[in-house]
Amino acid sequence: MSDRTYRISEIVGTSPEGVDQAITNGIKRAGQTLRHLDWFEVTGIRGQVTGTDASHYQVTMKIGFRLEDDE
Amino acid sequence: MSDRTYRISEIVGTSPEGVDQAITNGIKRAGQTLRHLDWFEVTGIRGQVTGTDASHYQVTMKIGFRLEDDE
Amino acid sequence: MSDRTYRISEIVGTSPEGVDQAITNGIKRAGQTLRHLDWFEVTGIRGQVTGTDASHYQVTMKIGFRLEDDE
Amino acid sequence: MSDRTYRISEIVGTSPEGVDQAITNGIKRAGQTLRHLDWFEVTGIRGQVTGTDASHYQVTMKIGFRLEDDE
Amino acid sequence: MSDRTYRISEIVGTSPEGVDQAITNGIKRAGQTLRHLDWFEVTGIRGQVTGTDASHYQVTMKIGFRLEDDE
Amino acid sequence: MSDRTYRISEIVGTSPEGVDQAITNGIKRAGQTLRHLDWFEVTGIRGQVTGTDASHYQVTMKIGFRLEDDE
Amino acid sequence: MSDRTYRISEIVGTSPEGVDQAITNGIKRAGQTLRHLDWFEVTGIRGQVTGTDASHYQVTMKIGFRLEDDE
Amino acid sequence: MSDRTYRISEIVGTSPEGVDQAITNGIKRAGQTLRHLDWFEVTGIRGQVTGTDASHYQVTMKIGFRLEDDE
Amino acid sequence: MSDRTYRISEIVGTSPEGVDQAITNGIKRAGQTLRHLDWFEVTGIRGQVTGTDASHYQVTMKIGFRLEDDE
Amino acid sequence: MSDRTYRISEIVGTSPEGVDQAITNGIKRAGQTLRHLDWFEVTGIRGQVTGTDASHYQVTMKIGFRLEDDE
Amino acid sequence: MSDRTYRISEIVGTSPEGVDQAITNGIKRAGQTLRHLDWFEVTGIRGQVTGTDASHYQVTMKIGFRLEDDE
Amino acid sequence: MSDRTYRISEIVGTSPEGVDQAITNGIKRAGQTLRHLDWFEVTGIRGQVTGTDASHYQVTMKIGFRLEDDE
Repeated sequence: MSDRTYRISEIVGTSPEGVDQAITNGIKRAGQTLRHLDWFEVTGIRGQVTGTDASHYQVTMKIGFRLEDDE
Repeated sequence: MSDRTYRISEIVGTSPEGVDQAITNGIKRAGQTLRHLDWFEVTGIRGQVTGTDASHYQVTMKIGFRLEDDE
Repeated sequence: MSDRTYRISEIVGTSPEGVDQAITNGIKRAGQTLRHLDWFEVTGIRGQVTGTDASHYQVTMKIGFRLEDDE
Repeated sequence: MSDRTYRISEIVGTSPEGVDQAITNGIKRAGQTLRHLDWFEVTGIRGQVTGTDASHYQVTMKIGFRLEDDE
Repeated sequence: MSDRTYRISEIVGTSPEGVDQAITNGIKRAGQTLRHLDWFEVTGIRGQVTGTDASHYQVTMKIGFRLEDDE
Repeated sequence: MSDRTYRISEIVGTSPEGVDQAITNGIKRAGQTLRHLDWFEVTGIRGQVTGTDASHYQVTMKIGFRLEDDE
Repeated sequence: MSDRTYRISEIVGTSPEGVDQAITNGIKRAGQTLRHLDWFEVTGIRGQVTGTDASHYQVTMKIGFRLEDDE
Repeated sequence: MSDRTYRISEIVGTSPEGVDQAITNGIKRAGQTLRHLDWFEVTGIRGQVTGTDASHYQVTMKIGFRLEDDE
Repeated sequence: MSDRTYRISEIVGTSPEGVDQAITNGIKRAGQTLRHLDWFEVTGIRGQVTGTDASHYQVTMKIGFRLEDDE
Repeated sequence: MSDRTYRISEIVGTSPEGVDQAITNGIKRAGQTLRHLDWFEVTGIRGQVTGTDASHYQVTMKIGFRLEDDE
Repeated sequence: MSDRTYRISEIVGTSPEGVDQAITNGIKRAGQTLRHLDWFEVTGIRGQVTGTDASHYQVTMKIGFRLEDDE
Repeated sequence: MSDRTYRISEIVGTSPEGVDQAITNGIKRAGQTLRHLDWFEVTGIRGQVTGTDASHYQVTMKIGFRLEDDE
């Protein structure tokens, strides 16, 4: 293994369905512009309330991705 | 937007089913006595174990709600 | 209630399905070797990304279990 | 000094002007319903952005107040 | 066990005698207005100094109590 | 509301005048290259001292902005 | 001093009497199965409430002990 | 009240007896060289173990004291 | 640049006017007895409440200053 | 000094040799795409184990760099 | 990849030479009794001082290892 | 062992060579003015970047030293 460098980008994925889906949505969207996604780490779970329902989950994540040599 | 003030109440929602349901249950119960619920933030995820099963999820949350002028 | 002592063991449960299932898997595995499991507390939620999918959830937990007198 | 007990309430004061004014606004509003306010502690400074301006400051504070004997 | 919800209230118990007594005093006072107290968690230990003596202990605690159905 | 994703960028705004102005300066500069700024959160307040004066305030902030579909 | 290695075990000592006694009880119990206990560090102080009394103190501790060469 | 400035000094008080006594010992010793002690805040509770006994409590504290005008 | 060493002193600056002025006051006072002040970092913002007004701001800061060779 | 703005990028530098080399590698790689690097701050030290050897050090760092006027 | 479970053990590696060597020593010792070591994470760097020299480095680490099916 | 009191001083040691050397330099300098140094604890690792090199390591440490009876 060579001395790879990784960059960490912080995003917020959202979903009306729950924590897992908000994670999934955020990573999918990040993958549209970032290559070589490698891992994620949840740093916060919040959400909006409409009436008395958790109407939108907002999961803050750090996403790590490998930098290419010419990137 | 006027200079609104919000209050934050800390609760523990519980459920045998999982994290999302415990959040949902806690917010619904809080909404029985608090008006104008606005957002929630998860500050802890715990649970009880029965045998070798996660038998009850306990999600600690801060819930923010807007104070009315005459409240 | 006598002056019981508990020990806390830190594990990482994993699952391709989501946070709840990773918790469940970890506790089940811990219960194969530890007796009297009592509670768990999630201390980290991470995961691996394959392509643009959260392909494996990794939930770090502290698990508390009661020590027996002759243990 | 007798063995007084204090309660801590968490609020979010807001203002378009800045951090100090958001603190001032929040405490004034809290004082409409709570007696014997004693101290505050800032636990978070956030805000909304409109265009490229910090358009609204939101200061989260813990406010301590003394409980009366018959309260 | 049904899906109970708990609320967490933060208080500061005080005593000239020490940490344990400050905890005891704070919980007793909280119990005058809150029903179904269940657990406490110490979040800070401070105090005042008079001359060169720890003259008053101030223990900040979170106290959890169960919400009733009609509460 | 659709399942929007937000990105969080961390910056340091500076000013010789004070905390509010350092926040304002940092957000204005960030808005030159980032679109759809939405919120900020202060994560650190530091500064330089010249002689015995706080000669330059440095406020570290996380700034959240919404990602567009084709961004 | 040679290059000793230590292991850290996390336990919860309990007592109806107070913080010091809960620490004492937990260490005594840990010493029944672990050799060469060296230091402890308190990481949390909680307890149960019965009525309006702190009926059981629960002190979470990390306990460090030296590993022997053949251990 | 004028614009007083306070300094915070960090010390470790020790005692074989318990947490309260370690706090008391540390403050008394600090008072031999520092004037105008005002408050303390416990930032850590550790100790040494001899055999299976908590043989020496070590309480880390921050102590605040008021600076005089010509100090 | 040689291998300079810095010392960090923790103080609390106060002011009835606001956060910036409390920082300024604290640093000015620290500069009466410490030479070569270099930077500050805010570690806490608290204050006293009189009636329903934030009557006194108390900003805890770490101040770094360079040690001279013969100091 | 004008009111410069800095951006903070989080990276993970790696090396089989140790902490210092992992820091050096990460910064060198970051400097290939970012101009005006100014400071770094280590936020985590992890690594992989192969057999019983720390085979690869992974140092997470925040790197601050000054934004140019037209950047 | 199946749903593996990992356990995390906390140890303190020591060395008179420096941080890297203390990490190396601790992992080597842990590998004498634990199989399938996978990763480590440094959670604290301390040391003893003899005269004016850092005479012994003590690095606290969490070490993760994979549990076997029959373990 | 009598009831010794320790004081903790926070310093920043620096070096162009690496983390270990910065620790060593800081402790040596502290030992010129403080007697009875006992332990250190690293609380932060930062540094300056020149071009694309970590040109100067800055290690923040707490240093504990025993107070003499007449000190």
